[in-house]
Amino acid sequence: MKTVCIPGEAPYRVLIGEGLLRKLGEELRAVHVPCRAAVVTDSAVAPLYLAQALAALRGAGFDPVHFVFPAGEASKTAETWLDIQRFLIRSGLTRADLLVALGGGVTGDLAGFAAATYQRGIPFVQVPTTLLGAVDASVGGKTGVDLPEGKNLVGAFHQPLLVVCDTDTFATLPERCLRDGAAEMLKHGVLADADLFEKVASGRWRDGLPALVQRNVEIKCGFVAGDERDRGRRQLLNFGHTVGHALEALSGYTLSHGEAVAVGMAAETRAARKMGLTNLSETIILKGAEANGLPAACGFSFAEVYQAALRDKKRTDERITVCVPLRLGEAALHSLSLDAFADYLEKGLTA
Amino acid sequence: MKTVCIPGEAPYRVLIGEGLLRKLGEELRAVHVPCRAAVVTDSAVAPLYLAQALAALRGAGFDPVHFVFPAGEASKTAETWLDIQRFLIRSGLTRADLLVALGGGVTGDLAGFAAATYQRGIPFVQVPTTLLGAVDASVGGKTGVDLPEGKNLVGAFHQPLLVVCDTDTFATLPERCLRDGAAEMLKHGVLADADLFEKVASGRWRDGLPALVQRNVEIKCGFVAGDERDRGRRQLLNFGHTVGHALEALSGYTLSHGEAVAVGMAAETRAARKMGLTNLSETIILKGAEANGLPAACGFSFAEVYQAALRDKKRTDERITVCVPLRLGEAALHSLSLDAFADYLEKGLTA
Repeated sequence: MKTVCIPGEAPYRVLIGEGLLRKLGEELRAVHVPCRAAVVTDSAVAPLYLAQALAALRGAGFDPVHFVFPAGEASKTAETWLDIQRFLIRSGLTRADLLVALGGGVTGDLAGFAAATYQRGIPFVQVPTTLLGAVDASVGGKTGVDLPEGKNLVGAFHQPLLVVCDTDTFATLPERCLRDGAAEMLKHGVLADADLFEKVASGRWRDGLPALVQRNVEIKCGFVAGDERDRGRRQLLNFGHTVGHALEALSGYTLSHGEAVAVGMAAETRAARKMGLTNLSETIILKGAEANGLPAACGFSFAEVYQAALRDKKRTDERITVCVPLRLGEAALHSLSLDAFADYLEKGLTA
Repeated sequence: MKTVCIPGEAPYRVLIGEGLLRKLGEELRAVHVPCRAAVVTDSAVAPLYLAQALAALRGAGFDPVHFVFPAGEASKTAETWLDIQRFLIRSGLTRADLLVALGGGVTGDLAGFAAATYQRGIPFVQVPTTLLGAVDASVGGKTGVDLPEGKNLVGAFHQPLLVVCDTDTFATLPERCLRDGAAEMLKHGVLADADLFEKVASGRWRDGLPALVQRNVEIKCGFVAGDERDRGRRQLLNFGHTVGHALEALSGYTLSHGEAVAVGMAAETRAARKMGLTNLSETIILKGAEANGLPAACGFSFAEVYQAALRDKKRTDERITVCVPLRLGEAALHSLSLDAFADYLEKGLTA
């Protein structure tokens, strides 16, 4: 088993290994007295792993109850969040109890937000069952739901008590979900680790998953530490996401997060290169994306992407902060006026 | 103008004085650059003070927008909270902007929760226009909404950036609202300041409001400091509330918060005296309540109050923590088993 310790106001550990789901209760008992544990999961994960999670919790003296919502981003709403709150009340959960988020990114965001706000906050445990959830959502404490107006518009920062990542659960992931994880790993490589980039960009990374997840969690942790509220250095993690979020929205979310981020990373690198901010060529990113079955371009126009990006929430005042990759393993933030940002986007979206 | 500095992770000041609403923009500019400011208020306060607040904000360079919801506890729901979120999106609020909660406790709780969760948290300013809001809700960072199952079941801890309390606004308060404030001031007196208790218990405290509010804010601050998450000493502030919350719920909220707390303080003191935990007599509390037009007893049975109290959220595990007044100005926490708590309640509710 690999362990990453996440520092902060309320430090916690990320445990990564094969077969860890069986030890969920045992590991949880090391950080919390046995209590009622509300397991929140979705209809795709429940048939695969819910029984095992409940058994592991019961075996360690916890008293589990469970709530299953329909799988998919369409469930990540204020309505489902409210359904979970009322389930927690019906189950008699008190502030001395805890919530277990068993599933991918949607489950972590939604159940995490429920834990952040139930009785003004109860502890929660993340059990990511997707590669993307493991390398991205398990660190940082971002929770939230979507509104009709956009993604993640409502939420809270709420750090988990513990993260338990059983890499065996990735075996049941559809290929497209694995690619989503690959896109975030490519991003981590560009930002902080050239060797990691080369490995993931080769497309041959599916052996030794625990060590790979560990390295990604360490990198993400390095960016989040000391900037839990996303005001400074953490914004580097938005590499590929300024364009990526816009593309996701424009596609009506038919593009997956990883697909959109892959196109976004290439476009943002191209833009930075053409503006003379970096010597890194987008070619290397395009190759890494291709080796992982990720797309290189999209069909949306500059004007469409510009409008969608302005609606995205990372804008403060009349400037936009973008992430510029300087070379493999190093990146910097640049603040652009809206005019300069328009120029940047146009350069990025034109081959 | 009186000032109380509230320490903590994000320290802030509570400004208290006559005519302060006119200076809202000016005072706010001392802690935040001019930006868009979303003023949230209710239909009772809007006709009285909204125009003045907007003018003060505009005069200092802020760009105010406003949202008015129907006055009353019935509006403190997840639905109104969601309406506010969507209003903030329509108004184009970013994380660099802020929210102003103009009104009483319902407005502070509801708008505070909206600020705590909009884009994972934006700054907010409390402008309490009720005595209860000024002496109670302006310190502590508790925000939240009610669910059909009970009050404040969903919420967050979110400290304001600044509190601006114009005591002139209390002049328009209905008598019953002033009494609600008196009940919390009596509580503060019992817990921490015998002189304050005597003054409020005399019923003659309506001159020199800024100094009186200041003393109450200082006392509340003393209990909250170092215990923002309500795990220890802060629980002393629940004096009168274990029974009070149960009575409020049982009455279908026809009893006001202050009325319920007044009855609760007398009952909890009686219970503690009969159990031999204190020598303080409930008579002194009954007299203080009477001098302020607050009730001394209610018509609910022990069994009803017991069941309602068990549903209240302060219960963790199989024990209940109650606050015991030792003498005027000093109190202590006691943890009771459910059996002992039943005995305590029965003693408290029987004259």
